[in-house]
Amino acid sequence: MTTTSTSTSAPAAAVLDGTGLAREIRARVAAGAAESAGRGVPVRLAVVVATDDEGAGWYVRSLSGAAGRAGIVCDVVALAPDADAGTIRRTLAGLSADDTVHGIVLQTPLPDGVRVSELAAEIVPEKDVDGANPLSVGRLAAGLPAHPPATAAAVLALLDHHGIALAGRSAVVVGRSLVVGKPTAQLLLQRDATVSICHRHTKDLAEHTRHADVLVVAVGLIGLVRAEHVAEGAIVVDVGTNTAPDGSLAGDVDAADVATRAGGITPVPGGVGPVTTALILDHTVRSARAHG
Amino acid sequence: MTTTSTSTSAPAAAVLDGTGLAREIRARVAAGAAESAGRGVPVRLAVVVATDDEGAGWYVRSLSGAAGRAGIVCDVVALAPDADAGTIRRTLAGLSADDTVHGIVLQTPLPDGVRVSELAAEIVPEKDVDGANPLSVGRLAAGLPAHPPATAAAVLALLDHHGIALAGRSAVVVGRSLVVGKPTAQLLLQRDATVSICHRHTKDLAEHTRHADVLVVAVGLIGLVRAEHVAEGAIVVDVGTNTAPDGSLAGDVDAADVATRAGGITPVPGGVGPVTTALILDHTVRSARAHG
Repeated sequence: MTTTSTSTSAPAAAVLDGTGLAREIRARVAAGAAESAGRGVPVRLAVVVATDDEGAGWYVRSLSGAAGRAGIVCDVVALAPDADAGTIRRTLAGLSADDTVHGIVLQTPLPDGVRVSELAAEIVPEKDVDGANPLSVGRLAAGLPAHPPATAAAVLALLDHHGIALAGRSAVVVGRSLVVGKPTAQLLLQRDATVSICHRHTKDLAEHTRHADVLVVAVGLIGLVRAEHVAEGAIVVDVGTNTAPDGSLAGDVDAADVATRAGGITPVPGGVGPVTTALILDHTVRSARAHG
Repeated sequence: MTTTSTSTSAPAAAVLDGTGLAREIRARVAAGAAESAGRGVPVRLAVVVATDDEGAGWYVRSLSGAAGRAGIVCDVVALAPDADAGTIRRTLAGLSADDTVHGIVLQTPLPDGVRVSELAAEIVPEKDVDGANPLSVGRLAAGLPAHPPATAAAVLALLDHHGIALAGRSAVVVGRSLVVGKPTAQLLLQRDATVSICHRHTKDLAEHTRHADVLVVAVGLIGLVRAEHVAEGAIVVDVGTNTAPDGSLAGDVDAADVATRAGGITPVPGGVGPVTTALILDHTVRSARAHG
């Protein structure tokens, strides 16, 4: 854990950087991809996109670039932004049946009226490298082998990397999405934390979050969490990736304010984000090793 | 909500009885089963048993008797207590493929080394009336149609029956089993409660449980929860079904002690138990209606 220095008298929270960990994971991924290619099995990731959302486009280019640099072939399967459920379903089923493909990501957002969890059932669990198939979610809850959603896995990887203990400690997750909040809670529970899940209906959010040793925020609201929400010395993981009015990337945590009380904060950008991307590639290499 | 009267000065908690609700559900089930039989589709439940555990035997006889009284055919498929995973798996697959069977329960305990969640994957989700297949668990988390585990559903049904509000309130679940704790937390979360999950690694259990408006205890330890664990006026749901030294059924809650502080407590026996049995039958009739 590295501590930023400061010239004020306020204690400064440690910055729980994700870029170093992401680099480590990508190095492991590149070695694994090279080893697989050497066995005659080039590792291949397919990303199915049915949106013209700018943020999604940026993310897919970043994932595809990272894959390429790690020696993973990344096929971006671009469908129309108004593709119907049947088309997306058939695309996913085709990739699931294709022995040369080791990982499949269904990019969100999807066309109106199409639910990711229904379609993701077409992704066979061993290739479901972002844990979107309800069967992956259930196997995770059952403690059976499954790929967890990459963002949730990134939260845990970042906490482990910075040596944050979890067993017996109070972890509070703000946000209950199927892709982040719920699986992160599941993983924290597996690690023997006492876990609470807060959301928009929670009365007096600060009353709950102030009891957290580890606070994970995944809501999508800039500056939702301030110093008043945080216990002295708490570890704060900011999963938010919001676009600020000036076009920059902003988390859910008011980092400057929270830093006066927290023991550590993950930065945005440079925290959970790069680890998430690296873990999708890592899951893909594992899938190629196990099933390729 | 009915309040027990008392001659002492201590405030007495309401008894949140389950037998009345179970009776209502069974009446609905019997009507549904009769209606289905009238359409030429007799409702059929199969219970697969591979244990000589006494408690399990008692439970299966009780379920089978309740089914019979409601006009549901109940086949108890008795396998050897040392049946191997393959035998159990083939039995479940056969019942899944049998169009005359509408509900399948895999009774626990199972032979040593055999995991319920792995085998239950052989139960097709529409017949998985006790929500044991990891796919049912995942679909539940995703908000997709699925049978929840009957005990978890019973906790919610009992709270609803007694008019306990959940949205925005603090619910604490003690116990994190796949069959009770985790799915109960999931259902409470779906109902917009702020949900915390405690377990054996939780430090200072009372510190957590004392913040609960609704406290659900599903651990399997007689008298684990006492008055000191409970907020004034809280609602306490006791899922424990332990055998007391005198052979009687005992919950996880010290009811006499907790009644001096709680607003309401579910009794053991006569609380969650009868509602659970009734809901397995209810899920089976629903399955026959939807897929029979």
